[in-house]
Parts: sequence; structure tokens; C-alpha cells
Amino acid sequence: MIEIYGHGGDRKTAAEQFGQPIAEMMDYSANMNAAGPPPGLLDYLKECLPQIVHYPDPGHRRLRGLLAERNQCTGEQLVIGNGAAECMALLLLALRPAVVGLVEPCFSEYAQLSSQYGSKIMRIYGRPELAYRADVEEICQLIPQVNLLFLGQPNNPNGVQYIFDDLKRIADTANAHKVILVIDEAFTDFIPLSQRISLQGELERYPNIIIVRSMTKFYAIPGLRLGYTISSPEMAARLRSQQVTWSVNTLAQAAGEWCLEHAADTDYEQQTIARNIKQREYLRERLTQMGCSVCPGEANYLLVELPEPWEAETFQMAMGQKGILVRSCAMYPGLSSRHIRIAVKDQEHNLQLLACWQQIFGDQQQDEQR
Amino acid sequence: MIEIYGHGGDRKTAAEQFGQPIAEMMDYSANMNAAGPPPGLLDYLKECLPQIVHYPDPGHRRLRGLLAERNQCTGEQLVIGNGAAECMALLLLALRPAVVGLVEPCFSEYAQLSSQYGSKIMRIYGRPELAYRADVEEICQLIPQVNLLFLGQPNNPNGVQYIFDDLKRIADTANAHKVILVIDEAFTDFIPLSQRISLQGELERYPNIIIVRSMTKFYAIPGLRLGYTISSPEMAARLRSQQVTWSVNTLAQAAGEWCLEHAADTDYEQQTIARNIKQREYLRERLTQMGCSVCPGEANYLLVELPEPWEAETFQMAMGQKGILVRSCAMYPGLSSRHIRIAVKDQEHNLQLLACWQQIFGDQQQDEQR
Repeated sequence: MIEIYGHGGDRKTAAEQFGQPIAEMMDYSANMNAAGPPPGLLDYLKECLPQIVHYPDPGHRRLRGLLAERNQCTGEQLVIGNGAAECMALLLLALRPAVVGLVEPCFSEYAQLSSQYGSKIMRIYGRPELAYRADVEEICQLIPQVNLLFLGQPNNPNGVQYIFDDLKRIADTANAHKVILVIDEAFTDFIPLSQRISLQGELERYPNIIIVRSMTKFYAIPGLRLGYTISSPEMAARLRSQQVTWSVNTLAQAAGEWCLEHAADTDYEQQTIARNIKQREYLRERLTQMGCSVCPGEANYLLVELPEPWEAETFQMAMGQKGILVRSCAMYPGLSSRHIRIAVKDQEHNLQLLACWQQIFGDQQQDEQR
Repeated sequence: MIEIYGHGGDRKTAAEQFGQPIAEMMDYSANMNAAGPPPGLLDYLKECLPQIVHYPDPGHRRLRGLLAERNQCTGEQLVIGNGAAECMALLLLALRPAVVGLVEPCFSEYAQLSSQYGSKIMRIYGRPELAYRADVEEICQLIPQVNLLFLGQPNNPNGVQYIFDDLKRIADTANAHKVILVIDEAFTDFIPLSQRISLQGELERYPNIIIVRSMTKFYAIPGLRLGYTISSPEMAARLRSQQVTWSVNTLAQAAGEWCLEHAADTDYEQQTIARNIKQREYLRERLTQMGCSVCPGEANYLLVELPEPWEAETFQMAMGQKGILVRSCAMYPGLSSRHIRIAVKDQEHNLQLLACWQQIFGDQQQDEQR
């Protein structure tokens, strides 16, 4: 198992385990934009490097202004963090929920951070027949028993959204019980605008909602760390009150500013979304043909259940030995020991992935026939 | 006042206030190595930029190994943070001290973070005749009344150290009362090795000590954020348990690794220390001649009390209009409204600083004579 830190994308552990140089491994275990950072961003950051001799702007003022414009909200509604992970930490520290509700399977940091900061956890489980969404009725029954509920939209690792009416019902129930609803939209940028389902436009009606966004997945800059929240100004002020000064480094702020000024609403964005859909659907089709059961995810990753008798960890080892990292999801509550998650990359890499996959499945069949 | 975030180095606020482009202002309000980053570091970081498409190593494994070597300790004793500020936040979150003791004047984040995370604060005050050190007897009387004591060594803003015997007496008293002693050595690297006074070598005897270090001041990379703590392995594990995954970004880790491999124990280090002493003593001499009272600081900054009738904020405004930022210390508990702090830079800049200073003092005298 290479998820010693509970996540995909740990190339160092993987390289140690598989004895291969990091640079030569294909990482399907972390969900980054396969196109890489927008053209021009790295050159811009090169120019910005001399600025690291100064402290970052502790108020993130320029980035906040640009994000407010992009999200049609006010700067007071925004909290910018050292990755979405810091944003989640801030809201847990500010609100100190006695009990946190989770809909499993979900991003493991929800449970990790909640325990870390002293919250108890209550879990309900997604249903296989709903592509691992939970029944909305069950979510509404969970809400009065918790102080804060995390909900991924689209959710990680299954990649699916709740429909608008369900989301509103969840938000209304939470509001009625004064429960905080944290909607994690870290991967929403990969979904075509017309298909994104968000309550962002309703925040005035829902003072209990905190939306969490990430800028590192779509713009492929997870090494820099950059996330933010949108909420009521009052909630935002509470979150900011827990933040460590200068937590968002100079280059993360510069990258965020540049992306909003030069990459948002451009071909890079449209092409990323279009390419992701095409490649994802191709992967889904081929994997289904190979006997896998693939979740109808809308993001840039797919939750895949391997056919019996495959186990996620055996398969991960076999792929790792071919230089490809996939994410075992065997440790996710609510999933089976046959679940893995793969990123969606570009055609060239995806074909390599599929070829290795086919080979491994073929080897297995041969072993069985012997 | 430009310290709206409670710190020096906020160039954005300063530029807005003084109506000057940021790049043209000389920043004496933040205490960075005047030599800038070690030669070669920025080039190395340029090469590293493509790595930001991957997550940082959440275990900081390579950097931790190098820091352990440098500090002759084990990796288990180290916690690496998103700046020393995150390290302080982690220890407050892990230990949740009901009462935090401060020796004012001191770094404002001690009080800021302590209040933020719910600790009460008890203060004692440094004495002008001890260069704003507190009387050690008074510190030892404070200790039984608190759960955790912050001590700067050298302290910010006065730049002085406690002698070894005093430090040991403080540590013994803290140990006897099971009080955590946090020794902030963020600026110790500017002091010649033979003159650094540290209990680092005694950590086995003092399980109650946490030493906080910064890599951003000496290597002039505050924009990247990088700090660490040294303590018992048990204490380090408690601090790490509060950390947000990936909080130390890829480039901060890369910079730290490079500095330890290429800049530590080199001419850069020796020259920085020698230049700092020479320039600091020259500044002290000239400012004393101009009627200022200058603390005998050993770090790369000086605490200066302006002669009457000057006020720190008036002087800061006057300097700001000449394009030079100094740090007003009027808001530090225990200091007077005439205290400012200046960084020590290179000769060229220091002469400009002194010339402007002289000019402002001269203008004032002329005003008085009119």
C-alpha cells in the first residue's frame, strides 16, 4: 500500500516501493488537469521568483479581488487558504463542531481533520445503485444529529453530483437545524458550466453554507497550495480569525492571480473540459468492456470496481511494477476491496494505461488457465 | 500606521499609504538577510518550478533528513512547518495551554496566535536597563502561573539573548512546574556560532522545551514560508498530529533542501554574519550620535528609541515619504511611543537610510528654530 499518508499522489513513497525513479512513473493516483498548468504560467512564476525575498501579502488583497470578480461575490465572502485543506482546517477550528457528519465514501481529509481537531464523526454510506451517493432522505435524517456536514459536489472518489433539488433540500434541512453545510467543490471546474450544480447563487438564503474551492486541481499546481471558501461575510470573518499569518505563500498568490487574469474563460479552460469528457468517456467504455464496473463520474477521475477475483492492492502493485500509480480505494469506508480510483489524463497516457491494464488482466487469465 | 496586520514587511499597505510603487521602496521594516538568497538558489528554484504540478511530499522526508544532519538531532525530533508561524500555531493547538506567558516586548504573533486559539495571556515586561530583557527572577515567578512560556532568543524586537545560566534557570523552573518553554530562535543564525546561546544541546534533559527556528530570515525567502521545531520526539509527534496535510509547499521544501546542501557552512553564511555585525555596529554608532538610544541587539535588526519630541508614527510617516519603511514599535506592550525597529542592510542602503534620517531630524530642528 502506498497511501501511507491517506492520499494518492505520494510519488516519493511509490517510487521507493516500486524501485523506480519518480520522474519515470505515470501518476494516475492524483487528480490533476492532464493538460498541466496553463501555458505561460510557469514563465510568469519564473519572473515572480525574486519576489520570494518579501513576505506574502497577509491580506491576499489582489487575489481576493480577482476571485470576487470571477465568482460574482464580495471579497468579504472569501477566505483564501494554503490549499483547500487549510480552508477545511480553518472552518473546523472556527466552528468546533462537536459532531461532524460524513457521507462515505468521501475525501479522507474530512475525517482526518475532524478527528484531529476533536470532532466526533457520524457516517452514512452511499449506495452502489446511486453511484455511491447517499439516499437524500438518509442525509436529512443524519443532519439533526450533527453540527456540521461535509458534502463533495462532485464527490471524491465517485465523481458524481447531487441534483439541485436534492442539494436544496439538504441545505434547507441543515438551515432549519442550524447545521453547517460544507460543500466541497474542489473539482467542479472540470464540469461544463451548464452542468455544474451549486448553491453558490443562493448563499444569501443560506448563512449556514460554506463552499470550498481549490485552484490547484484545474490549474495543475498542487505543489503551490491554493484554495478558498465562499460563504457569508460573517462566516468568512470567523474562518479568517483562525488563520496563521502569511499562510498563503507569495507564488501561490501570484499563480492564482495570473490564472484568473489569463487562463479563466479561455481556450485552455474550454479545451480542458472538453478533453476531459472525451477521454473520461473513452476510459469508461474500454474499462467496462474489460469487465470493470465504472461509476458515472463527471469529474476528472473515475471510481472503478475491478472484476473478481481482483483486489485493489494486488492490482495497484501490478500497475506500480509497470510504472503506473493508481489509487487503491480499499480503505474508503463504504467501498469494497476491489475499488480503485484513476485520474483522467490525455489520450497518449490513457492508451498506455489501458494497454498495461489489459496486459495485467491477460496475465491473470493466463495464470488461471494454467 | 502601516502595521494593519501587526507586522513589518507589509509592502502593499505601505505602498498604498505612501503612494509609491512597491518596487521603489526600501524595506527596513522586515528583518531579512540583506545579502538576499544565497547565490544559485533562485536558479535552482527555476529548475524546480515544473515540480509544482505534483503534491509536495507530505512527510518532508528529504528536508527532514538534511535538517536532522545539520542540527545533530534525529528526524523524529523535527517538525517542519509553513513558516515558523505555523510551528507556533501547531504547538498551541497540540498543547492548548490555558495560560500563555509572554515577556514583552516580543514578537506579536505569540499573543495573536495564543488569543486566536483560546489561551489567556499573562505578561511581564522587560526592563529598559536590561535592554528590555525581563529580570530572570520575575520570569521564574511568572512560570508557575502559566502553562506555556514564549521566549525569543534572541528576542524580537530588542535583539538580545539571555545568558546561558539564566536560560537554564528558566528551563529548570519550567521543567519543575511542568510548563512548556518555547524558545524562538528564528534569528539565531545571524549570531556567530560561538556567541549563540541555546539549550538545543540539552533537549534530552528538557522534555518541556520546544525550539522554533526559521529558514526564511537568514536565507531571505519569507515569501516561500519555511520553519521548523526541535523538541523531544514525543512532543514533535504531538505537534505533527495537528498539521494540515501538504502545508509545506514544494518550492519551500526544495529551497530548504538546497540551502542546507549548498549554502550552510559556506562563505555566504560567514559573510552574512560578518557583514551584519559590521553594518549593525556602524548603524548603532551613527544613530547614537544622532541622539537615538539603541538597544545592544545581536541580531540583524535594531530597536531604536527616538529622541524627544519624536514619535514613532510621525517618524515612520516622514521616512515613508522618502521611500523608506521602518517598523513602528509604538504598539508593542512595554515599549514607548518613541520606539522603532530597523533592519540591518548593506552599506549602500544603510547610508541612504542614515542620510534620510539625518535630513528628517534636521528638518525637525529647523521647524523648531523657526
